[in-house]
Order: sequence, then structure tokens, then C-alpha cells
Amino acid sequence: MKKKLTSAALGLFALTLATTASAQSNEDMIKYRQSGYAFMAWNMGKIKAQVVDGSVPFDQGQVLAAASVIAATANSGMGALYGPGTDSGSGWKPTRLKSAFFTDGDKVRDIAVNFMQQANQLQEVAATGDKAAIAAQFGEVGKACKACHDNYRGPEK
Amino acid sequence: MKKKLTSAALGLFALTLATTASAQSNEDMIKYRQSGYAFMAWNMGKIKAQVVDGSVPFDQGQVLAAASVIAATANSGMGALYGPGTDSGSGWKPTRLKSAFFTDGDKVRDIAVNFMQQANQLQEVAATGDKAAIAAQFGEVGKACKACHDNYRGPEK
Repeated sequence: MKKKLTSAALGLFALTLATTASAQSNEDMIKYRQSGYAFMAWNMGKIKAQVVDGSVPFDQGQVLAAASVIAATANSGMGALYGPGTDSGSGWKPTRLKSAFFTDGDKVRDIAVNFMQQANQLQEVAATGDKAAIAAQFGEVGKACKACHDNYRGPEK
Repeated sequence: MKKKLTSAALGLFALTLATTASAQSNEDMIKYRQSGYAFMAWNMGKIKAQVVDGSVPFDQGQVLAAASVIAATANSGMGALYGPGTDSGSGWKPTRLKSAFFTDGDKVRDIAVNFMQQANQLQEVAATGDKAAIAAQFGEVGKACKACHDNYRGPEK
């Protein structure tokens, strides 16, 4: 799966970020990416409740289903939703994207690629059913999310 | 995959719909489900552009990635986002869910299970790369979506 990522998904992200030859409006791009992140947040929350907090009994099927959403979303080419000018404007709500996202080049790409790798790894670990390993990898995905938030997500507007 | 669906995912949907033992607010449930559907719509649009409209060149990797999002979302146990009372209120926007969703029982379940089956089938067909077959199965997924919209989605408020 990692090999596939480096060749296909990584290229997909770079390509879609570079071209953004999209018929979508800025409002739609922002709305779709906010939707993707919100839906991932729901699924991250389910995994956290089951493997970190223990507030919900561990169910491997549910954890794998949630990890599959996160991996599929990470692999979906969301770079296409970051067209020029989408550091302002609203989708469901005003975007929090910082302008540096469009000028940091390799740093953005590295953060995005790491997120894809960690998300795919979470799906693989979830398939094993090893709760402790899932918890550890869940932490890595959280760090990958945070790397982008710390650098490119501003406060709520 | 179909066998797995009938035993696991089908059970998951029924279970989560029945229990809704969730710590989530109605606003969050509505917001998360609107996010899931919006993100699926973006991915449906990509497949449509490539295999139905032909407005974007066919790229199997992108179509499979989009189909994987749709299948993973369908399998994610969204029944848990339909708690009692969530036929009114707002997430990102006012919900369009009709109250009949909560009283139609088997009919709702059949529509949901069919959607999961068609979405999983789309992912399988996308993996083969057969464009005509993907287009045909894309149509089946569209019908499965429409079955719910026609019965349980009201107008924009």
C-alpha cells in the first residue's frame, strides 16, 4: 500500500494542487474540504472513544470502518480543493486556511504526504485488530493532522 | 465483500440506528451526516465527469479513490447520526430529513442496505478499470441515493 501511495496518491496530490483546473467555485471547494475534515473528525472521534478513552467498548469492525473513511479521504486528492484564492471566503463557514499554504511549497506537500501515509498505516493497523497498536498509530495520525493545523489553520472567524 | 456486508455492516446499521446511545448533540449528528453526504457528492461528481460526461479524462486511480470514499462512507455506520429528534434542527444548515424516516422501519433499512451494497459494488468495479461497467454501476449508486432522497429528504429550508 505504501508503494502505491508514493507513486499514485503522492503524484495525485501534487498534480491536483498544481493544476486546480476545476469547474468548482471557491465556495464549493471550501465546502467540500470542510465536509471531508468534519466527517474525518467524526470517525477519528469514534476511534478515540474505543482505543484511547475506552468510553465505548472496542469493536474492531467499527474501528476499521472509521479508519477506512480516514484513509479513503486522505487518498481522495483533496489538493484539488485548494484552488487559488480559497484562503478567503466561506463554504459551510468562513475558511480558516492561512495564505502561507500557497507559498510554502514543499513543506505543504511533505505535511500532506505524511498525513496520507499515516492514514493508510492506521487502516492497515486497524485491520490487524491490535488495540494498542491502533492507539499508537492513531496518535501518529493526530500528529499529522496537527502539523497542518499548527502551520496553516488560523482561528475561527 | 458482499458476505461481509450482510453480516457486519448491515448489523452495524441496524444496531446504531436502534441504539443511538451517542454522546453527540443533535446539531453535531446533523452536521456530520451533512458532511458525509457533501463529501460523497464531491466524489460522485468526479466519477460522473470521468465516466459519464467525459468532461474530464478517465483516470482509473482517481475513480477508484473516489469510489473508495463512497464505499467507506456507506460502511461507516451513519445510522448512528440519525438520533431521535434529528428530523428537525440544523447542522451546517437546517436538516431536510422527513419524520417518516423514524417510522418506516424496514423500508429505511432496505434502502440503507441497498445503498451500502451498491457503493461496495462500485468500489469493486472501479478496481477493474472497466469504464463502461463503472458507468453502469455508478448509475446504480445514483438510484440508491435517489431512493432515500425521494422518500426521506424534503426541500431546502
